[in-house]
Amino acid sequence: MEDRFEKGMEILNITNKDKIEGIFDELEDIAPDLGRFVVEFPYSELYTRKGLDLKIRELVTVAALTAMGNAEPQLKDHINAALNVGNSPEEIIEVIMQMSAYGGFPSAINGVMAAKKVFKKRGLLPLKKE
Amino acid sequence: MEDRFEKGMEILNITNKDKIEGIFDELEDIAPDLGRFVVEFPYSELYTRKGLDLKIRELVTVAALTAMGNAEPQLKDHINAALNVGNSPEEIIEVIMQMSAYGGFPSAINGVMAAKKVFKKRGLLPLKKE
Amino acid sequence: MEDRFEKGMEILNITNKDKIEGIFDELEDIAPDLGRFVVEFPYSELYTRKGLDLKIRELVTVAALTAMGNAEPQLKDHINAALNVGNSPEEIIEVIMQMSAYGGFPSAINGVMAAKKVFKKRGLLPLKKE
Amino acid sequence: MEDRFEKGMEILNITNKDKIEGIFDELEDIAPDLGRFVVEFPYSELYTRKGLDLKIRELVTVAALTAMGNAEPQLKDHINAALNVGNSPEEIIEVIMQMSAYGGFPSAINGVMAAKKVFKKRGLLPLKKE
Amino acid sequence: MEDRFEKGMEILNITNKDKIEGIFDELEDIAPDLGRFVVEFPYSELYTRKGLDLKIRELVTVAALTAMGNAEPQLKDHINAALNVGNSPEEIIEVIMQMSAYGGFPSAINGVMAAKKVFKKRGLLPLKKE
Amino acid sequence: MEDRFEKGMEILNITNKDKIEGIFDELEDIAPDLGRFVVEFPYSELYTRKGLDLKIRELVTVAALTAMGNAEPQLKDHINAALNVGNSPEEIIEVIMQMSAYGGFPSAINGVMAAKKVFKKRGLLPLKKE
Repeated sequence: MEDRFEKGMEILNITNKDKIEGIFDELEDIAPDLGRFVVEFPYSELYTRKGLDLKIRELVTVAALTAMGNAEPQLKDHINAALNVGNSPEEIIEVIMQMSAYGGFPSAINGVMAAKKVFKKRGLLPLKKE
Repeated sequence: MEDRFEKGMEILNITNKDKIEGIFDELEDIAPDLGRFVVEFPYSELYTRKGLDLKIRELVTVAALTAMGNAEPQLKDHINAALNVGNSPEEIIEVIMQMSAYGGFPSAINGVMAAKKVFKKRGLLPLKKE
Repeated sequence: MEDRFEKGMEILNITNKDKIEGIFDELEDIAPDLGRFVVEFPYSELYTRKGLDLKIRELVTVAALTAMGNAEPQLKDHINAALNVGNSPEEIIEVIMQMSAYGGFPSAINGVMAAKKVFKKRGLLPLKKE
Repeated sequence: MEDRFEKGMEILNITNKDKIEGIFDELEDIAPDLGRFVVEFPYSELYTRKGLDLKIRELVTVAALTAMGNAEPQLKDHINAALNVGNSPEEIIEVIMQMSAYGGFPSAINGVMAAKKVFKKRGLLPLKKE
Repeated sequence: MEDRFEKGMEILNITNKDKIEGIFDELEDIAPDLGRFVVEFPYSELYTRKGLDLKIRELVTVAALTAMGNAEPQLKDHINAALNVGNSPEEIIEVIMQMSAYGGFPSAINGVMAAKKVFKKRGLLPLKKE
Repeated sequence: MEDRFEKGMEILNITNKDKIEGIFDELEDIAPDLGRFVVEFPYSELYTRKGLDLKIRELVTVAALTAMGNAEPQLKDHINAALNVGNSPEEIIEVIMQMSAYGGFPSAINGVMAAKKVFKKRGLLPLKKE
């Protein structure tokens, strides 16, 4: 039987390799268990499940965080993760734009602006025109 | 050049055939233009775009509506739509369960309860165990 | 110097005459002070202010409650109030429809459905076509 | 080393004894793992922690669910739980009323109405006047 | 028959003249169609409708964005727009203050702080005392 | 009979002594009455009530603002206040971490980051390990 923490870290090494160490560092002196919970619950229990591949899992998370519109740091993390598991920047933008109908235009525009910061850093702009 | 309304109705005939007529009927005596906007904006402009297939489009909408947790009628409509375009009930449940980490457990549980009503009506229960 | 409670009740007698007694009754055995606060804070301190008339005050509240999408009973109360202070049903529907761009289409549709219940009870349907 | 599921069930037997079996039953044919996650993550990992007693843990959850205003079934569950771990109905109402300043009056009123259903069923009304 | 894009731009030239070009520029290399949608849907289809004048349309949007509390850039845009179509800064502050009862005090205070930035830039402070 | 404003200021002098003057200053030229309302409604009417002590009142507010995730300045104010009335930093972190189950992990992580800024300024880091 595989260890829960290791199982979650395997996923995080695929999705957010650069980010997770930073989160551990930031939480270390204040809430280290919250870092452990992130690994052991969503990554170990949800993202490892068979019924859906990581590409779709990251897209649905990008959708939810865009629509909720109140967690820009995590939205950027999951845009990075969505790229890391094989989604194209164009697909990510499609998801974010679609949220204009569910979370409203401000959330969608702010979601695109978050994506822009991520894409710029990774040299992915300009995107291909549809 | 294709008409915007017809273009949206083509998608709606695939995703929510049974539902859309009901929405038009409900809005007819109070806000008929809102029904037209639903067809002409999200369905005609967003769901018709090439960058993402309808299966993923419906899953990301299910994710957003589950996480927001304040629109059960539309969540049920999009769970129906997600099935209609080829997602399995198990895939839809994976998306909803994943929202426990983003919108919280109450939203995820209420999302599953919405799915249960839809799946029951379509004779899809019990689901296959993972 | 006018009493705060009376000052709030003067507004409520204009905006929600039928409703406020019911709220007092419902809160009486559990949280009577919350009923008093409703009168003494929003109605006595906000709705009595000079800078904006009651017609606009009720419309902006309808807008906010539609966009938030999580308080149907109060949305219906304020749709009633918006009518009571002189807004036409058509104006109220314009406000609610506009929220499709800010709270998303599901919130706007659910807002119209709330208005429909209110308008039906008051014999205001069907509305005039634009 | 104690089993995670059992550890969570020990808490749930204190906080929501009657409810948890019902949740398992409801999720059984559609998302049984979500029921397991509820036990293994929030109840086993959060509510068992030493830094805060169960009385306060249930009150802060009641606060959050009242302010968010989009999860009435779970709000009622946690109002029940808050009583079960030793909070008085008056204390619970104080928490809910305080939310009028953070989630707005509609959320606070709807929170009190949820509490009213719970308190009535348990024969706790009328409350003592402050 | 007038073109949809032009029709929306006519409104935007009245409400957000300085802003809209900036939005097009920002979206150009990542999601140009989202800029087009903003013009073609809310501005062309909603803000052009006859049932409500632009002064009220901008106030209800300011109300919704204040209460939702998660879209400061767009709140500032619409505070600017509200001024541009003839609302006084005092009227805008009345709307934002009123949201303390619906979105809570934090949202109202943050809304006032957003207005302060806009008013300062336009040399409108201090406001007249009520 | 004690004056409402003074009654609220007595609480604020205990909970947010340093902060409240700053808020008055910031609101002075734009919305001075909003500052007065903050004192006269939540602090004078809610936080002075007998049924719950200030320690718990501040914790439930921290919980709500963490879960809502859209008001960082006020969350930091109430984390400060929670300390000022006698909660330990560890207790505050327990409340914020618990919100991962209700507002989602992003809100909980952002809540911890807000606490980190407050605790750092007060020389409270690192916290004691559980």
